Amino acid sequence: MHRLDDPRPPRVDYLTVLPTVVIVGAGFGGLRAARALRRVPVQVVLVDQHNYHLFQPLLYQVATAGLEPEEIAKPVRAILRGQMNLEFRMVSVTGIDLGERRVLTDDHPIPYDFLIVSPGAQTNFFGLAGVEQHGFGLKDVADAVSLRNHVLTCFERSMLEPDAERRRALLTFVVVGGGPTGVEMAGALSELIRLVLVKDYPRLNLKDARVLLLEAGDRLLAGMPPRLSEAAAATLWKKHVEVRHSATVADFDGSSTRLKSGEVIPARTLVWAAGVRAAPLAERLGLPTGRLGRVLVGPTLQLASHPEVFVVGDAACLETQGAPLPMMAPVAMQMAETAADNIARQLRGAPAVAFRYRDPGQLATIGRNAAVAYIRGIAFTGFPAWAVWLVVHLIQLIGFRNKLFVLINWAWDYFFYERAVRLITR
Amino acid sequence: MHRLDDPRPPRVDYLTVLPTVVIVGAGFGGLRAARALRRVPVQVVLVDQHNYHLFQPLLYQVATAGLEPEEIAKPVRAILRGQMNLEFRMVSVTGIDLGERRVLTDDHPIPYDFLIVSPGAQTNFFGLAGVEQHGFGLKDVADAVSLRNHVLTCFERSMLEPDAERRRALLTFVVVGGGPTGVEMAGALSELIRLVLVKDYPRLNLKDARVLLLEAGDRLLAGMPPRLSEAAAATLWKKHVEVRHSATVADFDGSSTRLKSGEVIPARTLVWAAGVRAAPLAERLGLPTGRLGRVLVGPTLQLASHPEVFVVGDAACLETQGAPLPMMAPVAMQMAETAADNIARQLRGAPAVAFRYRDPGQLATIGRNAAVAYIRGIAFTGFPAWAVWLVVHLIQLIGFRNKLFVLINWAWDYFFYERAVRLITR
Repeated sequence: MHRLDDPRPPRVDYLTVLPTVVIVGAGFGGLRAARALRRVPVQVVLVDQHNYHLFQPLLYQVATAGLEPEEIAKPVRAILRGQMNLEFRMVSVTGIDLGERRVLTDDHPIPYDFLIVSPGAQTNFFGLAGVEQHGFGLKDVADAVSLRNHVLTCFERSMLEPDAERRRALLTFVVVGGGPTGVEMAGALSELIRLVLVKDYPRLNLKDARVLLLEAGDRLLAGMPPRLSEAAAATLWKKHVEVRHSATVADFDGSSTRLKSGEVIPARTLVWAAGVRAAPLAERLGLPTGRLGRVLVGPTLQLASHPEVFVVGDAACLETQGAPLPMMAPVAMQMAETAADNIARQLRGAPAVAFRYRDPGQLATIGRNAAVAYIRGIAFTGFPAWAVWLVVHLIQLIGFRNKLFVLINWAWDYFFYERAVRLITR
Repeated sequence: MHRLDDPRPPRVDYLTVLPTVVIVGAGFGGLRAARALRRVPVQVVLVDQHNYHLFQPLLYQVATAGLEPEEIAKPVRAILRGQMNLEFRMVSVTGIDLGERRVLTDDHPIPYDFLIVSPGAQTNFFGLAGVEQHGFGLKDVADAVSLRNHVLTCFERSMLEPDAERRRALLTFVVVGGGPTGVEMAGALSELIRLVLVKDYPRLNLKDARVLLLEAGDRLLAGMPPRLSEAAAATLWKKHVEVRHSATVADFDGSSTRLKSGEVIPARTLVWAAGVRAAPLAERLGLPTGRLGRVLVGPTLQLASHPEVFVVGDAACLETQGAPLPMMAPVAMQMAETAADNIARQLRGAPAVAFRYRDPGQLATIGRNAAVAYIRGIAFTGFPAWAVWLVVHLIQLIGFRNKLFVLINWAWDYFFYERAVRLITR
């Protein structure tokens, strides 16, 4: 419904009588919700602080000079251009007034009849201030580009550094966290150094260049069967990544990493892939939250106190089989569809349905011809898993142009051992 | 020759007895000089503050969301990978000690036997502090990406702006300077708005969106025949660019442009393409300079006081036929070849040759199917000029991958009226 306190003219008259669904966040969940509401008799207002949707699973390839950031992002307006009942606003959401049913932003507040909250997640530094200040997260374009610039700058500086010890610290890269992001990052970084950069720096001594992957637990990829964890570790070792289990980071000061065991690793680069937590908006709502700041929702994804409000994706905490669902894109997209469906049902007086997660499987790539996959109870590795990973990611990437450019870049990298985007752009 | 005060080990023994040529700057001139010295018995040290060579003529397409910055830049190490007598160092040059023959940097000083100075040019704001602070130059990647972000943000903000006057200021884009850069920028900006963004913003009133091109003189493209100036102005008008002659900017405060005539144009965006001057290094040498801070060189491009030092490109002032040569890529590249040749001649005891400029002609594109060309005394416009422009720029762009990606982007834009890179990345 168009509110009188909105200073803008109503968009089209016949739409103003429709209920307004505001969607916060244009990530996997928000975008899927917006699309699912295409034929529902509502006016959709999608808001995001960025004007693009970002395909986060490939961010690590931006950080390792394989892809340009523009290839894994697409403007929201371009994605949803044909959707007549949708309006996009690039604003930052500062809070939600659940009583007055308004989304508070750095611009005017936006009144809603229904609300889908899908703000996603942010890096979780677990209170390690040094890591947060000097280390690199991997959640947005700025993170990835900063990391790429930093890694390449370390190589340039190492060429100018006469002191052997300092040179080794410049060329030591610590990746923390043995989940899919950490595994993929470590593998890609090692291949960048040993297959590509070695050609750029003929004076580089490869013995000086190290990539370490530190995992606090006793195996990598804890969400997969142990057989795959072992395969991933073995493949990483083959790719010259030093995998360490039961290694917990205590501090990082920009020039060395200190472990809980007391060990100190001189390294100028620390990539933090050890955890995420719900975006701050989730906690700002003042609602009961579960672990990692995620808002507790009922099986229909509604707030118990406000059935017109749905929370989906990383910011939602829904327990199934005793454990909260993982913070992953497939969960967010499926939740978004259920939330949109439940809004449509509410409008036509039908009862809401409960969310049911259909696990599409898990994939992690380690490098050339190497990946691990666990799909419908079947575990496989090597080239088949790698091929599945490529196809799945190409299909999911939004936009034909992005698919084409990514495919060309991958082919280039594969056949010529070349990553073209190794530019330092400050 | 390897100096004892250089803390690094000599690279390869048989090279250390060769004279060292240091080249400052990896632009069109520096890169060409490095290549020309490939088979000359010297050790070449190429330095630049960036790790990439930038194809500046297409920067305006990055600023107007047509190309990704990575597509018009290529890492120097990748370009010169096969050149055995070359070493690249990413350092900032802070000065040159002509007496001691050392290039001073933010790292160690670099001793030379011969020196080629090709630091290029920077935007010349002619002391207009407001323009420098709030306006946008167009000389490097950061300029272009900032401008792209700013233009797209203006459109996003205009959608949220209830005040009609402020909305119009957000959508008014002032381009200052009627040279090739200004003409190309104004044309590309107008097409971006009228062919692409209009599809993204269905509520946009095109009457609110204006592009102005302000030229202080009485015609555009002063370096070309008057017939082409008129053709360019007429084409720009057809593309909805308001061309103003004899319009001199006095000030810009970020929300309105004040002209010398007293007229005030409310506009949130000012692109300054009204002039360049030699990079600050040129003046820091303390040598006699001509207009725009360019170092006066003799016909052999050597310094009169220091024949081992050559200055080439935008930073060199060489008068031919009573006027200094223009600050353009072809001049820089040809000068670099002469400088390299003169170093080789000096080494084998032959006399230095004087520089002779062979004008390859001038081109400026205005938009789809529209350009002006002046080649070997022949002036032509329209589709033929545009086709020549495309081919020339594709050929000159360095690297097959960059050529391919630019070509795909151009084809995309041409056939689908789409510029894919309209992302706001802060």
